[in-house]
Amino acid sequence: MRHLTADYLREVGTEIFRACGASPDEANVVASELVETSLMGIDSHGVIRIPQYVDEALAGLVRPGAASRVEKDTPTTAIVDCGWNFGIVSAYRLVDVAWGKAREHTTACVLGTNCHHVGRLGAYVQRLAERGMIAIATVNGSKLYHCVTPWGGREGRLATNPLAYGIPTSTQPIILDMSTSMVAEGKVRALLHQGEKVPSGCIQDAEGNPTTDPKDFYGPPMGTILPFGSQLGYKGFALSVLVEVLGRTLAGLSIAEEGKEYKLVNGLCLIAVNPDAFCGLETFKRLVDELSAYITSASPAPGYSKVRMPGSLDFETRAERLETGIPVPDKTWSLILEAAEKVGASIISL
Amino acid sequence: MRHLTADYLREVGTEIFRACGASPDEANVVASELVETSLMGIDSHGVIRIPQYVDEALAGLVRPGAASRVEKDTPTTAIVDCGWNFGIVSAYRLVDVAWGKAREHTTACVLGTNCHHVGRLGAYVQRLAERGMIAIATVNGSKLYHCVTPWGGREGRLATNPLAYGIPTSTQPIILDMSTSMVAEGKVRALLHQGEKVPSGCIQDAEGNPTTDPKDFYGPPMGTILPFGSQLGYKGFALSVLVEVLGRTLAGLSIAEEGKEYKLVNGLCLIAVNPDAFCGLETFKRLVDELSAYITSASPAPGYSKVRMPGSLDFETRAERLETGIPVPDKTWSLILEAAEKVGASIISL
Repeated sequence: MRHLTADYLREVGTEIFRACGASPDEANVVASELVETSLMGIDSHGVIRIPQYVDEALAGLVRPGAASRVEKDTPTTAIVDCGWNFGIVSAYRLVDVAWGKAREHTTACVLGTNCHHVGRLGAYVQRLAERGMIAIATVNGSKLYHCVTPWGGREGRLATNPLAYGIPTSTQPIILDMSTSMVAEGKVRALLHQGEKVPSGCIQDAEGNPTTDPKDFYGPPMGTILPFGSQLGYKGFALSVLVEVLGRTLAGLSIAEEGKEYKLVNGLCLIAVNPDAFCGLETFKRLVDELSAYITSASPAPGYSKVRMPGSLDFETRAERLETGIPVPDKTWSLILEAAEKVGASIISL
Repeated sequence: MRHLTADYLREVGTEIFRACGASPDEANVVASELVETSLMGIDSHGVIRIPQYVDEALAGLVRPGAASRVEKDTPTTAIVDCGWNFGIVSAYRLVDVAWGKAREHTTACVLGTNCHHVGRLGAYVQRLAERGMIAIATVNGSKLYHCVTPWGGREGRLATNPLAYGIPTSTQPIILDMSTSMVAEGKVRALLHQGEKVPSGCIQDAEGNPTTDPKDFYGPPMGTILPFGSQLGYKGFALSVLVEVLGRTLAGLSIAEEGKEYKLVNGLCLIAVNPDAFCGLETFKRLVDELSAYITSASPAPGYSKVRMPGSLDFETRAERLETGIPVPDKTWSLILEAAEKVGASIISL
């Protein structure tokens, strides 16, 4: 484990993505977002993804520099064909489109097609909130990732389908970024490697029986992950269906024909609402601050030190890691160096 | 327990609300919606509410016939001052406003202020979905109902804050209508009266300790209800915060000043997205049907007979109850007759 500064990791990432064929600007966008995610403590979606994105670029699954095209454009809606550029570049493009529409016309709903992995979904609602919008975002996945059962089922029909929102305040936004499943597949894999159990109520074996053994999940035959909500999991299932509809169906993409015309890794949908059309942004921020103060004034329950607003812990982690550096496991670091070598990026290894 | 037809209960309800001072049309809207809710099996929000609404009208908390006024109007947004008419009348007004805007301008976000109890939230996303819109709805409650803790807290800071969505299909819409808490307060009260326990993980005593005894919840001192999600309850908490912000803050209402200027029982927010701006409504419905077929093709897990789409069970109950009648407990029926008498409504008791 080494601790590396955000600046250094950003330079490394930018260099690597440039060597993949991205423009300096776009390479910087991808690297900066991954570093930002690591800073916030969400290591599963941070710099650990550099080698994955490099491999996918080399395999032609990501097309660095590809242009995006706004289709089906109305004053408040659009479908953006992302052209298989890096998903993070595409998602930032969607943020710009949604923001422009909501600024002019007070609401917006924007979808991306041909969109690669967008990374941390919370990033995009955060950017919109920082630019004064209430934002809701959803992202689904292709059938390949359908390891989550519908409620009462024993076969996967949905991905972990996260949803996120961002709300402007006078300081950092309130952010939720949640999967609609009980656990991420990557988490189950990590527990398998560590020889540990999965918390009960998260996974099923291939027969649909509850289990805590990650081996039962990986099979073969493969097991499944349960929708979020434990005994109320029909709620998580239903939220997941909405994510799937906004990410795929609304764009006109058929689930039955996914194999024939592969247009989806991540189906991203952004909805933006402009507080200026209601109470006005400044009043809104002040009233949200007041609400946060009211909520966090609740005494903590036994075992908790204080009540926090959604997302605030991530911003605290960010402040800490800006001081102490980002912890990068040796394995991750060697994979990043390997990725650099594959594309011929010249980076100075620390 | 008696079984009464929907037609009869609708006539009874309409007669009663007319006697409260509502116009024939508005009386019919309120009665029809309560009966519809009972038909769907959601008895907690159905005809059982007739006596409550009558008492509140008699106390001046509901103002039958009050006009609504569209304020802060833009092509895609509005705040509707509902004037304390019956919440169901107000919510239907919001549905009309949201639908008109989304039809013309493809997206809409509409809020209500001075809005009384709206009943079943799912009703309004259902109406929008039946009129071709993807709809999201949230409704919060005044401080009086703040019995739900934030994550890690032991004092109530939120109401049960439901959220709902509706998605058009070629037949009945897909509907989610979920509270963002583990259990409704009314459910805990019912269990108290029945001398039964609350399922574990739903409530806390006043000290924030887990309990299953409804007496610990009612105290005094009062306990609290936990946010939806069990060990992942920070997700339910965060969803609840969004509901609160959309229902109150966005309209410019201060939580700190709630006592001073009482403008809220239910803060309703409707967001509508028009599929015509994306793949087109007919294509959309066909692709949603296809998605539903794919999802429900999953084999059931042990203990389940089949996989269903969200909301489909309610429509099945509706079909059954149209045949068999709506079951009305004696106590509920006598309270309805009492309410009729209070306002001098002449109804023929069966």
